[in-house]
Amino acid sequence: MMPRIQLLATGGTIASQETDKGLVPLTGAEGILDFMPSLKDRAAIKAKDVFMLDSSNIQPEEWQQLARAVLEAAKDAEGIVITHGTDTMAYTASALSFMLAGIRIPVVFTGSQLPLRHAYSDAPGNLREAFTMAASGRAGVFISFHHKVIYGTRAVKMRTLGFDAFDSINAPPVGVFDADGLHLAPEPKAPDINGIKDPLAIDPRVFLLKMMPGTDPEIFDHIIHAGYRGLVMEAFGLGGLHYIRRNLIEKLHSLSAAGIITLVTTQCLYEKADFTIYEVGRGMIRGGIYGAHDMTTEAAVTKLMWALGDLDERRHLLTQSLAHEMNTAVTGT
Amino acid sequence: MMPRIQLLATGGTIASQETDKGLVPLTGAEGILDFMPSLKDRAAIKAKDVFMLDSSNIQPEEWQQLARAVLEAAKDAEGIVITHGTDTMAYTASALSFMLAGIRIPVVFTGSQLPLRHAYSDAPGNLREAFTMAASGRAGVFISFHHKVIYGTRAVKMRTLGFDAFDSINAPPVGVFDADGLHLAPEPKAPDINGIKDPLAIDPRVFLLKMMPGTDPEIFDHIIHAGYRGLVMEAFGLGGLHYIRRNLIEKLHSLSAAGIITLVTTQCLYEKADFTIYEVGRGMIRGGIYGAHDMTTEAAVTKLMWALGDLDERRHLLTQSLAHEMNTAVTGT
Repeated sequence: MMPRIQLLATGGTIASQETDKGLVPLTGAEGILDFMPSLKDRAAIKAKDVFMLDSSNIQPEEWQQLARAVLEAAKDAEGIVITHGTDTMAYTASALSFMLAGIRIPVVFTGSQLPLRHAYSDAPGNLREAFTMAASGRAGVFISFHHKVIYGTRAVKMRTLGFDAFDSINAPPVGVFDADGLHLAPEPKAPDINGIKDPLAIDPRVFLLKMMPGTDPEIFDHIIHAGYRGLVMEAFGLGGLHYIRRNLIEKLHSLSAAGIITLVTTQCLYEKADFTIYEVGRGMIRGGIYGAHDMTTEAAVTKLMWALGDLDERRHLLTQSLAHEMNTAVTGT
Repeated sequence: MMPRIQLLATGGTIASQETDKGLVPLTGAEGILDFMPSLKDRAAIKAKDVFMLDSSNIQPEEWQQLARAVLEAAKDAEGIVITHGTDTMAYTASALSFMLAGIRIPVVFTGSQLPLRHAYSDAPGNLREAFTMAASGRAGVFISFHHKVIYGTRAVKMRTLGFDAFDSINAPPVGVFDADGLHLAPEPKAPDINGIKDPLAIDPRVFLLKMMPGTDPEIFDHIIHAGYRGLVMEAFGLGGLHYIRRNLIEKLHSLSAAGIITLVTTQCLYEKADFTIYEVGRGMIRGGIYGAHDMTTEAAVTKLMWALGDLDERRHLLTQSLAHEMNTAVTGT
């Protein structure tokens, strides 16, 4: 019996064709399978188009639509492959990691840096590897790209042009492909996530603020008045913020007083945020302000949107790893 | 004759000592030299404290103060070493690269991940290498850290804890240290920058906006109404923005109409932004919107602040490389 795999297409470069407006996604799931008939030699494949978008246009509403399509497909499939543009794939894969936490089959995102029909395209290789991962039986949400499989919560798009577009940040890859096939790392114990009432509920009212020297504290007032419910802040180094002349730490506490949940991460790509170490960070440890520890920004943004989907139910999960997004407990209260 | 080197101290982890508030910078330039007497065996060193700050507190006003101290020191010194916290060192080094474009001596930033007096500190090694670079005769602004010398405009702090804290992004390092000493890459032709009237003039009214899927376009209205003059935007991939449901491209044009200068960069660490390739990016090519090409965000922010210091004089320089910050001409108009 060949494994039953569902292909869900969403657009992206892999589906794009040259037009007079630039590259536009036009090829659907059936078109992908028609171009790659050998995929059917090793799997019984059903194909479905969920939407047809450049991934720059994929937003929280599309994450929900896609998550519903995955849950529907999972009723019958043993694995799911999702073709998706690379630009926001790490956000979508991370969002679905939280919305689908506990899913029992592989949900594997892939895409390409050049369109499927381009002579030098990386799409055929990426599709073959994604289908292999989808047939592996390993449960979870992953990105499979250029010989690597990465947790959905650990992927970052590093390169705008290179074929090796994604890296696994602060965690080793889940799997690597070589001439022998797919080598999977040992399967970690699944986190115990049960009884989430409406796991697809999210609230996109999150502001992402990357600090720079000179950031004007007025932005915090704006975040309060504009009705945001959450803030992900990329601070300096381990979590520093300036407080002389432009006092960001004082303003951050006013957010906290207004009931806004803040996740503090670092603008350094690698390693953790820990604002207990330096004086410039210590002022931050108060209610409503959480350290993102070694989460990527993509994971922090999507986890906070998800937590805000039902804050009473999920607030305590901000300090726990749900989908391999953190290595240890976060600091903060 | 030993080379005449000026040490300018600004605080940072290298100068920090443990207190009950966490690590606080307390050691000045003379204290550094007292701890490292061997530095005086190979250079005639003058020491000066410019300020004493955790680098999270270093902002555009400190960049100007430091640039003035460098210009004063350069009257007599053959090289300058600046000790500085690592968290914002890449921003300060990049800002000074623009403010001091055309300087004829080495200006070398360094620091450390552990305080000078810590048993495992990387400070002694980093100081020795920085003094070697400062005596090299190579003109420009650099960061010397963990056996690498990087252009001030090309450095990014990548790791919050690892000793190899900085990488040279989209350009090879200027120099590397091994057991033979410092190996410098061939010196490129200096860009022809002359006649800047007041090169230390900058305008910090720049907003740094990192996009996420679901970014609410209302932030663009706020940027206009709050009186910002410039925007650095980290877009997706080669420069994509969403326009369905939340139309960021339309809003971006309203910024342009309000006279705000926008530099579009990518949130991918490596390789260039080029929003001519995809339909989701093409809508952006209008007046006042410039591609940052392969500049780091740190370089884009500091270059835009510098350009806004005298926009009539410097606007055309947004599309030229002044201090090795770009590999080729930017796109945009």
